[in-house]
Amino acid sequence: MIPENMPNPVEIIVRKRDGAELSVDEIEALVSGLLSGSVTDYQMAAFLMATYFRGMTDGETVALTRAMLHSGDVLELESVRAPKVDKHSTGGVGDKISLCLAPLVAAAGVAVPMVAGRGLGHTGGTLDKLEAIAGYRTALPPARFERIVREVGASIVGQSAKVAPADRRIYALRDVTGTVESIPLIVASILSKKLAAGLDGLVLDVKAGRGAFMKDEKSARQLAEALVRVGRGAGKRVVALVTDMASPLGLTIGNALETREAIAVLMNDGPDDVRELTLRLGVEMLRTAGLARGERAARTRLERALADGSAFERFLRMVRAHGGDPKLVEHPERLPVAKAQLAVAAPRAGVVAAIDALELGWVSVALGAGRTRADQAVDPAAGIELLAPLGTRVSPGEPLCLLHARTRALAQAQLERARAAFTLAKSTPRARPRVLTRIGSA
Amino acid sequence: MIPENMPNPVEIIVRKRDGAELSVDEIEALVSGLLSGSVTDYQMAAFLMATYFRGMTDGETVALTRAMLHSGDVLELESVRAPKVDKHSTGGVGDKISLCLAPLVAAAGVAVPMVAGRGLGHTGGTLDKLEAIAGYRTALPPARFERIVREVGASIVGQSAKVAPADRRIYALRDVTGTVESIPLIVASILSKKLAAGLDGLVLDVKAGRGAFMKDEKSARQLAEALVRVGRGAGKRVVALVTDMASPLGLTIGNALETREAIAVLMNDGPDDVRELTLRLGVEMLRTAGLARGERAARTRLERALADGSAFERFLRMVRAHGGDPKLVEHPERLPVAKAQLAVAAPRAGVVAAIDALELGWVSVALGAGRTRADQAVDPAAGIELLAPLGTRVSPGEPLCLLHARTRALAQAQLERARAAFTLAKSTPRARPRVLTRIGSA
Repeated sequence: MIPENMPNPVEIIVRKRDGAELSVDEIEALVSGLLSGSVTDYQMAAFLMATYFRGMTDGETVALTRAMLHSGDVLELESVRAPKVDKHSTGGVGDKISLCLAPLVAAAGVAVPMVAGRGLGHTGGTLDKLEAIAGYRTALPPARFERIVREVGASIVGQSAKVAPADRRIYALRDVTGTVESIPLIVASILSKKLAAGLDGLVLDVKAGRGAFMKDEKSARQLAEALVRVGRGAGKRVVALVTDMASPLGLTIGNALETREAIAVLMNDGPDDVRELTLRLGVEMLRTAGLARGERAARTRLERALADGSAFERFLRMVRAHGGDPKLVEHPERLPVAKAQLAVAAPRAGVVAAIDALELGWVSVALGAGRTRADQAVDPAAGIELLAPLGTRVSPGEPLCLLHARTRALAQAQLERARAAFTLAKSTPRARPRVLTRIGSA
Repeated sequence: MIPENMPNPVEIIVRKRDGAELSVDEIEALVSGLLSGSVTDYQMAAFLMATYFRGMTDGETVALTRAMLHSGDVLELESVRAPKVDKHSTGGVGDKISLCLAPLVAAAGVAVPMVAGRGLGHTGGTLDKLEAIAGYRTALPPARFERIVREVGASIVGQSAKVAPADRRIYALRDVTGTVESIPLIVASILSKKLAAGLDGLVLDVKAGRGAFMKDEKSARQLAEALVRVGRGAGKRVVALVTDMASPLGLTIGNALETREAIAVLMNDGPDDVRELTLRLGVEMLRTAGLARGERAARTRLERALADGSAFERFLRMVRAHGGDPKLVEHPERLPVAKAQLAVAAPRAGVVAAIDALELGWVSVALGAGRTRADQAVDPAAGIELLAPLGTRVSPGEPLCLLHARTRALAQAQLERARAAFTLAKSTPRARPRVLTRIGSA
């Protein structure tokens, strides 16, 4: 709603520029004006840059989140009786957690209406990973999405163009005007999309390190704190974990490779770090949903769901409900496999002391697993398999990782870059925990 | 010229945002990119807002000035042998100085290729004032402009669309994105237009006070200093006077009224303040042109040109060369006269201690003398005649000013606002000098 005597866009820009706190009406006028055409792209761009410099109060950020959220369809999911909690990760390399986490917590009673994204740049995307399962449809009508959430407990879909269209417009502008790195703008963008799925609560995985958007723990923590404050300001239960993204998560990077790894975790196997982070985030989701008091009770419940096969069974049902071939989940070895596989040998003896997530992210894009423009297709089979994870002692010539690609030439071209991503040291490095901090009192 | 490996616009925006000093190539890439379409309006808007916050070094401002200057036609005026010096005022109320000044200094040997503007908002424009003289053409082909400068010594024209088109685009963007008030952007905008007329030197009249863009002497002084530094950085002789614009200049506001007053000055008459400021700026122009060493010699020469009729004769020739009716210059009482004239009476006895230039500027717009949008026409006859200038002792009911308008109703509607613009005090206020500071060592 734009009130009658709305200040014009220039006045709003000037007020932000001069450090004033904008009213809810002013922020709504800007956002709705952008969609209606009364606020131009160049005015929004100037506003975004002024916001970059001046920041926003939590109140302004809540107003911006709500304005973007209400710029499009909001699913209420009223037929879903279970508490609705979603997880959002700010993006990393090898991050397949959503695939194991959604069915796991669904098995424990949480409803997970998850709206996920695609990979862009060095980070992968949950939708691309799910689409490695032949037939899996990530675009569903809202009623179908709601039914799957209600009946299966978890559904992972892509964002419909009707959800938060203002965020879509503003994000595209930020991307080309040097205004991406603004915490209130990041917060409003994340929350407006996530809260459009009628959630009761949200658990955030804010990545920190080379392979993440936030390159250090301090800035990741600032973002996590802002997300929690603003999410709560918008009336939701929100908790955030700040987690390490210096090295890739798990032992695989690439769509089918990661889906296979996620299935392994659901089969009560898989790499320790993926299993552990899945459990940690799952505990937060259960507690946020009000389904477990203490951490220990929540963890026990989740471990049981992994052990008794109920988490795996949820995943199978979710895939089937989305049109995916359940055989590929039961036999993950049948998921796409790359024709060319090239081992990257250690140049000398040593202990793997660091694996550069950012570099391997880009190698994986070059192998065909990712994209640099939103309109590119990905090769589901391409990617990287880590054979020598952190702490492994290797001899010269021993394989560090395996590059998977459509052709040997494609893999060959990435050999040196992949090799350089591994730091070999004399002694075993101290193990770093994945979870660095937890933000949120709940 | 855009070098091969040009950084993309987003990188340039981010560098400015982060406080880096941009290279000449980067600034040229932005400006030429805006015209070619490779830099979008929203990217330029974000850049302008980042510049608002980060400022520019003098080197960057020189580069921006040059890039905008060379975005269009640059007149060299090579056939003009006399030193070419122009004057620019940042805009005020009742500022008709250009009309007297250009012919005056032309009579003293300076060539004045003056590119002037139109009124917008509360400030008037030289072109509108000249057009009160029937037939005066402000749009001339460059060759004709050059011939008049060469033969008459002064020509006042409007800015051709081919001059500094990048400034035109950028100015229009600044106007609607809250980025007008940035000293480097103001400086580059003024200088890029002025220097396109092949000048040797430029004298600036930077107005300070209620009726000016810069509301206080300090900010006006900052602008003046930046103009002088950057103008010199661009290789021109530049001097600036910071002058008071708390009260209107002279005794008239409005086009024909002001033209009549300018003609009076050229006839060696007219209000003291207009005559004095004309002489002060004229002295600077003569010295900038290298036609007089000392202030006293320059002033004597100009006073003689007013007394012996040569300044008036130059104006007559200039008007004739522009197609204007010389009879109207010889008989200024024949210039357009408004049908309705309404006296604004003093509400009580007192001494006129202040006259609010800003308020009277807006009253004058409302009477029809100005415009609030660039596409509006002005009424040449409309305006305000001050009958009780600063320091005048008035009795109750005695007229403070006379409102000139097309209809009595138009004038009536402005009566109270005009009256309120006059501050009546008990005692005579101390006279304020018009010229507050001079910037420039020359």
